[in-house]
Amino acid sequence: MTSATTRNLCIFLSYLSQLPSSKSKQQNLDIVMASYGPRLVVPIDVKKKPWEQKLPLHNRWHPDIPPVAEVTVGDVFRVEMVDFSGGGITKEYTAEDIKHANPSIVHYLSGPIRVLDKDGTPAKPGDLLAVEICNLGPLPGDEWGFTATFDRENGGGFLTDHFPCATKAIWYFEGIYAYSPQIPGVRFPGLTHPGIVGTAPSMELLNIWNERERELEENGLNSMKLCEVLHQRPLANLPSTKGCVLGGIKEGTPEWEKIALEAARTIPGRENGGNCDIKNLSSGSKIYLPVFIEGANLSTGDMHFSQGDGEISFCGAIEMSGFLELKCEIIRDGMKEYLTPMGPTPLHVNPIFEIGPVEPRFSEWLVFEGISVDESGKQHYLDATVAYKRAVLNAIDYLSKFGYSKEQSYLLLSCCPCEGRISGIVDSPNAIATLAIPTAIFDQDIRPRANKVPVGPRIVRKPDVLKCTYDGNLATTRNPSSAT
Amino acid sequence: MTSATTRNLCIFLSYLSQLPSSKSKQQNLDIVMASYGPRLVVPIDVKKKPWEQKLPLHNRWHPDIPPVAEVTVGDVFRVEMVDFSGGGITKEYTAEDIKHANPSIVHYLSGPIRVLDKDGTPAKPGDLLAVEICNLGPLPGDEWGFTATFDRENGGGFLTDHFPCATKAIWYFEGIYAYSPQIPGVRFPGLTHPGIVGTAPSMELLNIWNERERELEENGLNSMKLCEVLHQRPLANLPSTKGCVLGGIKEGTPEWEKIALEAARTIPGRENGGNCDIKNLSSGSKIYLPVFIEGANLSTGDMHFSQGDGEISFCGAIEMSGFLELKCEIIRDGMKEYLTPMGPTPLHVNPIFEIGPVEPRFSEWLVFEGISVDESGKQHYLDATVAYKRAVLNAIDYLSKFGYSKEQSYLLLSCCPCEGRISGIVDSPNAIATLAIPTAIFDQDIRPRANKVPVGPRIVRKPDVLKCTYDGNLATTRNPSSAT
Amino acid sequence: MTSATTRNLCIFLSYLSQLPSSKSKQQNLDIVMASYGPRLVVPIDVKKKPWEQKLPLHNRWHPDIPPVAEVTVGDVFRVEMVDFSGGGITKEYTAEDIKHANPSIVHYLSGPIRVLDKDGTPAKPGDLLAVEICNLGPLPGDEWGFTATFDRENGGGFLTDHFPCATKAIWYFEGIYAYSPQIPGVRFPGLTHPGIVGTAPSMELLNIWNERERELEENGLNSMKLCEVLHQRPLANLPSTKGCVLGGIKEGTPEWEKIALEAARTIPGRENGGNCDIKNLSSGSKIYLPVFIEGANLSTGDMHFSQGDGEISFCGAIEMSGFLELKCEIIRDGMKEYLTPMGPTPLHVNPIFEIGPVEPRFSEWLVFEGISVDESGKQHYLDATVAYKRAVLNAIDYLSKFGYSKEQSYLLLSCCPCEGRISGIVDSPNAIATLAIPTAIFDQDIRPRANKVPVGPRIVRKPDVLKCTYDGNLATTRNPSSAT
Amino acid sequence: MTSATTRNLCIFLSYLSQLPSSKSKQQNLDIVMASYGPRLVVPIDVKKKPWEQKLPLHNRWHPDIPPVAEVTVGDVFRVEMVDFSGGGITKEYTAEDIKHANPSIVHYLSGPIRVLDKDGTPAKPGDLLAVEICNLGPLPGDEWGFTATFDRENGGGFLTDHFPCATKAIWYFEGIYAYSPQIPGVRFPGLTHPGIVGTAPSMELLNIWNERERELEENGLNSMKLCEVLHQRPLANLPSTKGCVLGGIKEGTPEWEKIALEAARTIPGRENGGNCDIKNLSSGSKIYLPVFIEGANLSTGDMHFSQGDGEISFCGAIEMSGFLELKCEIIRDGMKEYLTPMGPTPLHVNPIFEIGPVEPRFSEWLVFEGISVDESGKQHYLDATVAYKRAVLNAIDYLSKFGYSKEQSYLLLSCCPCEGRISGIVDSPNAIATLAIPTAIFDQDIRPRANKVPVGPRIVRKPDVLKCTYDGNLATTRNPSSAT
Repeated sequence: MTSATTRNLCIFLSYLSQLPSSKSKQQNLDIVMASYGPRLVVPIDVKKKPWEQKLPLHNRWHPDIPPVAEVTVGDVFRVEMVDFSGGGITKEYTAEDIKHANPSIVHYLSGPIRVLDKDGTPAKPGDLLAVEICNLGPLPGDEWGFTATFDRENGGGFLTDHFPCATKAIWYFEGIYAYSPQIPGVRFPGLTHPGIVGTAPSMELLNIWNERERELEENGLNSMKLCEVLHQRPLANLPSTKGCVLGGIKEGTPEWEKIALEAARTIPGRENGGNCDIKNLSSGSKIYLPVFIEGANLSTGDMHFSQGDGEISFCGAIEMSGFLELKCEIIRDGMKEYLTPMGPTPLHVNPIFEIGPVEPRFSEWLVFEGISVDESGKQHYLDATVAYKRAVLNAIDYLSKFGYSKEQSYLLLSCCPCEGRISGIVDSPNAIATLAIPTAIFDQDIRPRANKVPVGPRIVRKPDVLKCTYDGNLATTRNPSSAT
Repeated sequence: MTSATTRNLCIFLSYLSQLPSSKSKQQNLDIVMASYGPRLVVPIDVKKKPWEQKLPLHNRWHPDIPPVAEVTVGDVFRVEMVDFSGGGITKEYTAEDIKHANPSIVHYLSGPIRVLDKDGTPAKPGDLLAVEICNLGPLPGDEWGFTATFDRENGGGFLTDHFPCATKAIWYFEGIYAYSPQIPGVRFPGLTHPGIVGTAPSMELLNIWNERERELEENGLNSMKLCEVLHQRPLANLPSTKGCVLGGIKEGTPEWEKIALEAARTIPGRENGGNCDIKNLSSGSKIYLPVFIEGANLSTGDMHFSQGDGEISFCGAIEMSGFLELKCEIIRDGMKEYLTPMGPTPLHVNPIFEIGPVEPRFSEWLVFEGISVDESGKQHYLDATVAYKRAVLNAIDYLSKFGYSKEQSYLLLSCCPCEGRISGIVDSPNAIATLAIPTAIFDQDIRPRANKVPVGPRIVRKPDVLKCTYDGNLATTRNPSSAT
Repeated sequence: MTSATTRNLCIFLSYLSQLPSSKSKQQNLDIVMASYGPRLVVPIDVKKKPWEQKLPLHNRWHPDIPPVAEVTVGDVFRVEMVDFSGGGITKEYTAEDIKHANPSIVHYLSGPIRVLDKDGTPAKPGDLLAVEICNLGPLPGDEWGFTATFDRENGGGFLTDHFPCATKAIWYFEGIYAYSPQIPGVRFPGLTHPGIVGTAPSMELLNIWNERERELEENGLNSMKLCEVLHQRPLANLPSTKGCVLGGIKEGTPEWEKIALEAARTIPGRENGGNCDIKNLSSGSKIYLPVFIEGANLSTGDMHFSQGDGEISFCGAIEMSGFLELKCEIIRDGMKEYLTPMGPTPLHVNPIFEIGPVEPRFSEWLVFEGISVDESGKQHYLDATVAYKRAVLNAIDYLSKFGYSKEQSYLLLSCCPCEGRISGIVDSPNAIATLAIPTAIFDQDIRPRANKVPVGPRIVRKPDVLKCTYDGNLATTRNPSSAT
Repeated sequence: MTSATTRNLCIFLSYLSQLPSSKSKQQNLDIVMASYGPRLVVPIDVKKKPWEQKLPLHNRWHPDIPPVAEVTVGDVFRVEMVDFSGGGITKEYTAEDIKHANPSIVHYLSGPIRVLDKDGTPAKPGDLLAVEICNLGPLPGDEWGFTATFDRENGGGFLTDHFPCATKAIWYFEGIYAYSPQIPGVRFPGLTHPGIVGTAPSMELLNIWNERERELEENGLNSMKLCEVLHQRPLANLPSTKGCVLGGIKEGTPEWEKIALEAARTIPGRENGGNCDIKNLSSGSKIYLPVFIEGANLSTGDMHFSQGDGEISFCGAIEMSGFLELKCEIIRDGMKEYLTPMGPTPLHVNPIFEIGPVEPRFSEWLVFEGISVDESGKQHYLDATVAYKRAVLNAIDYLSKFGYSKEQSYLLLSCCPCEGRISGIVDSPNAIATLAIPTAIFDQDIRPRANKVPVGPRIVRKPDVLKCTYDGNLATTRNPSSAT
């Protein structure tokens, strides 16, 4: 029973208590108190394809994608969702599916959901939509997930120049814990969260997005130094009719054609929230989203059983289907009240978040550091991205001392609850980024010891991740000092 | 009594227990067990100037700076240190000192300390030096600190284009807590740590540093896109005789001249650790530092009562004098065993850290997000630095809704225990960075509320930070959408 | 898919990978990988009465109650359960049901479950059964619970001499959070756990229980000083045919009659685990239970959405129906290896527990203290129970300063995640017990303030708990110094 | 500089800022800002005997013991203290000192300290004194402590019937960590706290104490069932001139004689706070103490580097000398406002506490359970003390599986940061108490494992605790089922 219903019930009960017959009271109660729990507003059947679901999904941001459901503030409602790939990446023990994945279809989202206040008035532009995540988890009967890297020619990842091959690991869930046959010796509790929660952009905001991303796509390789360090391509993902799914708007219609050419891809997080990948947005968290169009049109998807800060392998959390139980509140005119735009227009805002009180508790952390000097030895200027890349590379190489392949570590650090911090951002020329790994997730002590890592035959971690060949011809970044 | 001494004592006691006379046993015991606690190897008198201290300080990295003390593994020893400025920034209620601070003298370090194993053999290149921070804190009678921003012409800070003026706040300590008359309404427990812990570089490593930083200094403005967003200058701090202090090497001698022109500045963290500014390196932490020269030559300084991730205002933690109680261990050949070089030479390594078990505990966090779109609306490519700048700007503007001036918030976020995370680094084109603030440090509830921030006369936070004028002529970045 | 199945699958896949045709491989995979998630071994339909469930329940401990299910070590399996009263206490807004509750029927348990190793050999006496709680929660559609006190004539509670009336509060769940219309102004995340997890006793152990409890029941009032302070009655709950439910054993048969007269009540925790009410046994916890009969015969029930240490109101957690996902391991001969009997026989042992990593995180606690002086001012000797009673009374009176009725506080402290500690147990004559309340569960700041609790019209917490009259004639303990 | 001084300084600075000459301003500032940090109001020289200290100590509670210092609310002040025995228990490697310890001299306290508000008006009866612990720790040069059990004839401990011998372990501190040569293989961070913080009782309260404790001493053995389980004697510690130290009141004077016969022993915690032994009262904690006499007359002592809940071995924390930095606040009429008396008079109150934010963080706990059945197998009625005794005995026997002697475990569980909980207090007839041990304090994994504790030669923990013979003739409680 939702809290709004509860309140109504309270009123109803007061009324009943004045009735003469306790029998009729009981009868009425039986009717009222029939069932409890959140109302299911977006159901998913994981045995069906994305386009066969009862309510249509979408994989683009656009104001004209029609809502599939309506909720009232105070209600707890349930939204189910497919995994980001809509089942394209399977539980088969092969990486072929990830190698040939279609990047144009990500991410399948549930929604949009139109939000009304208790008087039935919808959220309106300028409001702030507070979304509380009351509960979340995998869908019953579908308790598994995957972590993968795309092939360098097909999306890559943070370290794609080092690891150009498509790889995959399957994770099984034992309640709060996940383990993978492909990465033996680790097991950890999930800090489960939706990768994507966002409101629909207005056309004005959509235009801002498309313009600035097109500019990057066209000129970035020449102007952005980071392109020499990060090899993930394309630089931006522009609107495209290919793979486009627009919810209730029928494919092939003129309306669809028009919207598909305008609608923003869901890959980056933006002013509307979207693909924030904030790994701590778990149960009890609250998200304050700006409202750009009437009704707010909330969409969500890309459930992660667990993710490391940065989601470095790109397909990188433990990706899964799942459900959210949400409760909304509308803060009228909250954008002006709480968000200061940071950019040329009043739309240049970002959401605010509150972190929930229930998270896995780790007391010991091993921390790897990176500075903004790249693998070639080149000095960058306070670049936290370069520094973080180095911190991650350091961690991967370190873990290989304990019997893990580098691909195993790459996937592990992408999906385990590790923390990526910007430790120093002012000590020119070096930004300092750190990656902290909770040591309790391993079945061995991975800390440095004066008596060193055991020599002779090591603990060999077999089997390895599922892996394909890289058939492209881009050069791999080789660590000049590394034996391997 | 140190643990090494304890062990010796145990042996000694076994011996004594075989003696016939309990009286002579007691006499011997009295001699042995005279005193306890860590041995003070680097004393500081805060009433004296840096150059008047009993043991000479230094503010450069160079292999030839002679050790001022020697310690044995297993011993707990105490190192005291001046604040980074050596008292140049004072407890006076003015920002003039920070406006005219001399950047060439930072950071005054204590050491170098030569480390020997129990046989008296020094640490040698290729070893790993494990340094445990057993305890730390302010110096008795000197329980205060400061947080400041340099003038834009004199070092600036992360947001110097927004805040070009020199500002300062004084913090007083009440045991574990700090409060500032200039930033009323906040009080928080310190997560005290040394900003700088490092080993001496070899000449080979020093040459690598100087070369790559000179290259940046010379060509960076043209090649580094981030220079359009970050306005802190210079891009790098190259060796300079100005303000140079080289410990036991007498100023003005030919040796001094030579070394001063080679010795690296201490501002950035590098392969030897150094100015890592990892805010969680508090009591119980352990630092695994590579050893580049015989004896390791450990130096430390730049104590922080508390710091936020990023130390954004640059002079940015709660800067103070203080002490460390340390215990060392040598992991022979540990560099090869545990550190994989990431760059052209075997010296391109980074330290590893373990975080200690005693940290302030916060359960509620408010999180601000930034994406890699800069204040002008320009799209950057997966740039975590740009994203973090935006997250910080968002947080500062938000706090101004609660009665704080933006300068107060800038200093506060630089020194309070806030967390800066790289949440997403693969969702092209946007990196997602987040800044999480523990809400318990405020004396009011700073979370968004449906009934909004109270209108009418707000809680005005007076007085403000200490502030100077900015007399330069560089343009300030104005937030086009901001009222202020 | 269970982990055992996963492992079989791995073997199967290795086999498949050697097959020539990838098509037949896929076909086989489709068969194997049909579904995932825990196997449901004990289903519950909350719309049905306890005696109408598909598998019979039981509410007594006896070795001859036949298993209703069988599980293999390594499998993750799901056990559903009714609330302890089997629906006897309802969601109606009245306390009549609790006033007239039938104490002889508690607690309805699910099981017994027979545990086998992978070879099919059952657990045997002397083994240790490690039970991991992989996951747990309320049953879908039944997301509510209740906290109550029994009438003093019908079971009472820890403070029944102060609060002799039957009372009740209904809690609704919003995902991880619970709130109650009867106790407004509080909301907290659940630390959900089963109140009861235990193995079946052997006849030998059962005889020990019955004998010692009968002795207490017969002579306790004369010999136990605590009876003057604690007024909960009866002193012990001896076997009784009344209300007895014995699973697969048909009521009324001679076998049933015999067993019903031997079978232990489930109210107290004992050597087999049972009603431990350890509030932290949530997801990820592990329970090491002694095995007394072949197959272990694991039973569980009495789910709590949340409970305070002590469960002081007796019907005292947030009682609910729910599910557990469990995984077992058999430690052969583990009793001898890990448990030292503490009493006259080798059966006088107690289980061991490991606490899981996911618990609500609270950083601020207000702590109330009690000493072993009772309400009449009488001094007891190191009596932690008396001390805890006083700590709880202190807390209840304190909360009444903030607008709560004492009955509201009594129920709240029974079910919210408060901690009850034995702080000092050696400082004769006073034991010191403490009750720590997380302050974040309140919507107001409940800490003492120099400017005091607001005077004049207080925040009145309306409505109050549901309450019946007390119709007995036992004297109420009145606090002589209390106004109320 | 204290915060009150700071505020005065602020006012002073405003004044100065209006002066014409900046030079005279600076001169005045130099005077004002001479030194910082807490004012030392009670100094201790650990090389001196208790009766040689600069300010007299006391070891009794009485309203007429004159204050040795005066403080103003808002000031941070430093109080140093000897260990509870005033150096009677030494750092020698022998248990003879503990065997022959004089129980009549405990605990040497520092104070009383008279507390005034800013107008100079003292705290008055009926006020609440809020005492914040800003900081604490060992005294420099005295970084060691001891844990011990008294001989059964001389005070005993919680398990004195099992462990009648005097034993001792010495702990050395390495900053936040303690280790003991007598209990090898463990090391843990301290949760340092004062065992005793209290205000002076009024004569009326003193009379209540003496009367109720005398009644127990005289009649308890016959009336208190717990005396059959707990063998610590005497039942209460009544006033006695033996060993009595009354601060400024000269021994042997008539006044001294009178007061010595009235003054309460400091062993038990009571209405005035006193020996609460709440192990979490560390830095940042706040204690709300009732004020019974003018000036409050705050005393403190019995510093503990670390203690387990219950302090089971009686001399049982890591006992040490140390310092507190405190800050007081007076809540006028706070007793009536916040404390409800629970007993025959308005004086029957207990203090309230707030726990500080900086505590060691442990994520894994192993939990032992006890029920209220004693070692003879006898059933007690909801007796948490009996249950806790059994939980502790279970834990001790368990740890002996891992190479520890039972005496080592007894001392360890008395002083390490383990938690003692009252888990169930209503499930007649069994109270359930639990003891939770953080597993990270051990250098081995102490959790049960399916492959069991390693057989063959175990890790033998040598040496053992320091130990004396027990020369009395009371029977030892032998665990009938234990091999040892």
